[in-house]
Amino acid sequence: MARIVQKFGGTSVADVNKIRKAAEIVVKAASEGHEVTTVVSAMGHTTDHLISLAEQITPTSGERNPREMDMLLATGEQVSIALMTMAIQTMGHEAKSFTGAQAGIITESRHGVAKIQEMRTDRLESSLARGEIAVVAGFQGVTENEELTTLGRGGSDTTAVALAAALGADRCDIYTDVRGVYTADPRIISDARKLPSVSYEEMLELAATGAQVMNARSVELAMDNQVPIRVRSTFVPEDVGTLITHRVASPEYAIAGISCDMNSASVTLKSLDNVNESKPLEGISALFTRLQELGIQTDMVMVLKHEDEPSQELVFTIEKSALPRVQQLIESLALSLGNPLMQVETDIAKVSVVGRRLTNRPEVVAGVFEVLHNASIPVQMVATGDMRMSVITSAKHGREAVRLIHQRFNLSDGSITV
Amino acid sequence: MARIVQKFGGTSVADVNKIRKAAEIVVKAASEGHEVTTVVSAMGHTTDHLISLAEQITPTSGERNPREMDMLLATGEQVSIALMTMAIQTMGHEAKSFTGAQAGIITESRHGVAKIQEMRTDRLESSLARGEIAVVAGFQGVTENEELTTLGRGGSDTTAVALAAALGADRCDIYTDVRGVYTADPRIISDARKLPSVSYEEMLELAATGAQVMNARSVELAMDNQVPIRVRSTFVPEDVGTLITHRVASPEYAIAGISCDMNSASVTLKSLDNVNESKPLEGISALFTRLQELGIQTDMVMVLKHEDEPSQELVFTIEKSALPRVQQLIESLALSLGNPLMQVETDIAKVSVVGRRLTNRPEVVAGVFEVLHNASIPVQMVATGDMRMSVITSAKHGREAVRLIHQRFNLSDGSITV
Repeated sequence: MARIVQKFGGTSVADVNKIRKAAEIVVKAASEGHEVTTVVSAMGHTTDHLISLAEQITPTSGERNPREMDMLLATGEQVSIALMTMAIQTMGHEAKSFTGAQAGIITESRHGVAKIQEMRTDRLESSLARGEIAVVAGFQGVTENEELTTLGRGGSDTTAVALAAALGADRCDIYTDVRGVYTADPRIISDARKLPSVSYEEMLELAATGAQVMNARSVELAMDNQVPIRVRSTFVPEDVGTLITHRVASPEYAIAGISCDMNSASVTLKSLDNVNESKPLEGISALFTRLQELGIQTDMVMVLKHEDEPSQELVFTIEKSALPRVQQLIESLALSLGNPLMQVETDIAKVSVVGRRLTNRPEVVAGVFEVLHNASIPVQMVATGDMRMSVITSAKHGREAVRLIHQRFNLSDGSITV
Repeated sequence: MARIVQKFGGTSVADVNKIRKAAEIVVKAASEGHEVTTVVSAMGHTTDHLISLAEQITPTSGERNPREMDMLLATGEQVSIALMTMAIQTMGHEAKSFTGAQAGIITESRHGVAKIQEMRTDRLESSLARGEIAVVAGFQGVTENEELTTLGRGGSDTTAVALAAALGADRCDIYTDVRGVYTADPRIISDARKLPSVSYEEMLELAATGAQVMNARSVELAMDNQVPIRVRSTFVPEDVGTLITHRVASPEYAIAGISCDMNSASVTLKSLDNVNESKPLEGISALFTRLQELGIQTDMVMVLKHEDEPSQELVFTIEKSALPRVQQLIESLALSLGNPLMQVETDIAKVSVVGRRLTNRPEVVAGVFEVLHNASIPVQMVATGDMRMSVITSAKHGREAVRLIHQRFNLSDGSITV
């Protein structure tokens, strides 16, 4: 008998029939003698519908109260847990639903992007001890003051992993609408290969760079807590999917996959004034402190200081949705940033090659540049790290770049060559 | 400065524009310097939609888990409070939303029909003290064990009145889609007259016999706590509506109004066996104890014992929706009820004349019989009490009976004659 956490995303519970299908998977595991905790997201487009209601009430996103948005959005998952529990009960198995608060998911009070602070799982433990399937609302938590919070994008994955860690689960199954983690998005690359396993680190980079199969924060949480994750399909449950674990299954030099992120915008700041020499980075430091406080993630941060010029240049990417807040922030910090000239690019694609020890593999960098050059695909920015190489190109070239790189490194047949 | 509770029903918050309209009423009161707590129901047909989802998952109503139904239905009001709060904030006023749990509405654990046990309003008091408009989810509460509960039909009215009592509010305004309490349903009787005021007792009888403007339980709660209620229209807020209070505004002999209930079913039990002489009512007592435990309300209960026969006859009415549970219950108690023959009528209308001291006014009873007889409208059952006279007729004659009685007592012009 194992203790299992199973998470079903929005597409897996999009309608009543799909909820039944998911319930069958849950009941099957319980019938095999396992202790099952299941985490569910809001049904299909519920969250979008709720957001559109809020947009009608308060058109300007900056004016929408984050506390009230959490109050609103938390209802989506609550509907799902009630229906999922009824579906399980109708199949003859004991089950009980739990809101984030009831499941003991205690968070900090930053609405919309709250981080989990503590897990108080005694109610869930009692439920499991009674032989019930515990059905927990993903994406939500509660503060010490009983304020409802949400965990931000991919929050249901985070709930599932945090529960798996707190309950000491043997594994955490993330059920979704794809069969696992692929070498590239199968909607772009028809012969992309499904990885039998991938390391936490590789998955983290893939998620951080646009692979939508799992959220980066939840992968990090799984890594920190050594929770083995299986990404698998609700609609093809016999497929074991992809195992995410610390075990290195792929050979050392392998490229795990290629991701493509179309949701980023790049921001370039050229400081026109002479920034105080003794504290040249003070303004930039203030900027990033504020970005962190606002829960806005940045990527591909680069600072250029031309030796012969007093000005400096700062470049980074953010999610497009954060752009209004970032622009407002930069305006408020203009003086300490040297009254910068701001350039924003939203029509971009970020293509990332993820694998181990890429810094030791200049041939990967060379190969990427080679195929993009041969195809006359423009490269606006490049950043490389130990685990990945990311290239910013124009949005219209994104898919083609993924296809060419996937082909260049022969990722479809598993015999990766660099 | 007064302390006011304002409640907006489902039709008053049916869409985004109506929520804005309601928010305007709330903000106006707050701007006039009043301390405002507002209670909102689920938007329009939200509850019906949620119930239909549950019906798809679990078709048999008796098998639907009451705890999970509460978990599901409570989301409807939670959406409303978040949107209402955002609407108020967008108009520039401070506001904060509260679930039933956050508002401190502690209930017993009978899911679906939970009664309020205690009000812990310290969080609301703090919110009001900060100058915020407190926006509270109607219809829901929480048990000591943090289980979500709902208060049953008309639960949002109950929430509003209970809050008004606990907060020591000066008045409780129930905003709805009609302008007040009428002498009869204005959709049936075009010249029905709006009552300027009505006593708690009269309103209680009207509500209990099918007037849908307010829920009987909440009227009772208002009466017990001496909370003055104003029933008024969200869409014509300048109309002061009808005041419900202990003050007797109408003359002693007046008929307050006529209600018509199409949602009742009658149950007749004819005991065929000789019921134990020493305890002739034991079975009936057990039946009504169980009905009470199940939260099923009965009306027009009559027991007939024919002197020359060993059998007895029991008749009562219930809500149609409770019929499957009642039938099942009677089957389980068949032996102690003397293996009764059960007859059920669902195609009925209950027409009630409500007024003070009707028992002292046989001419009211006479007048009702007179018009129904003249119009050849069949009368299946009659029950009279101090405050009302109810007649069961066939469903198709309900409206006509209301019209004829309304006309007979000249209720349209206020100069009531018996």
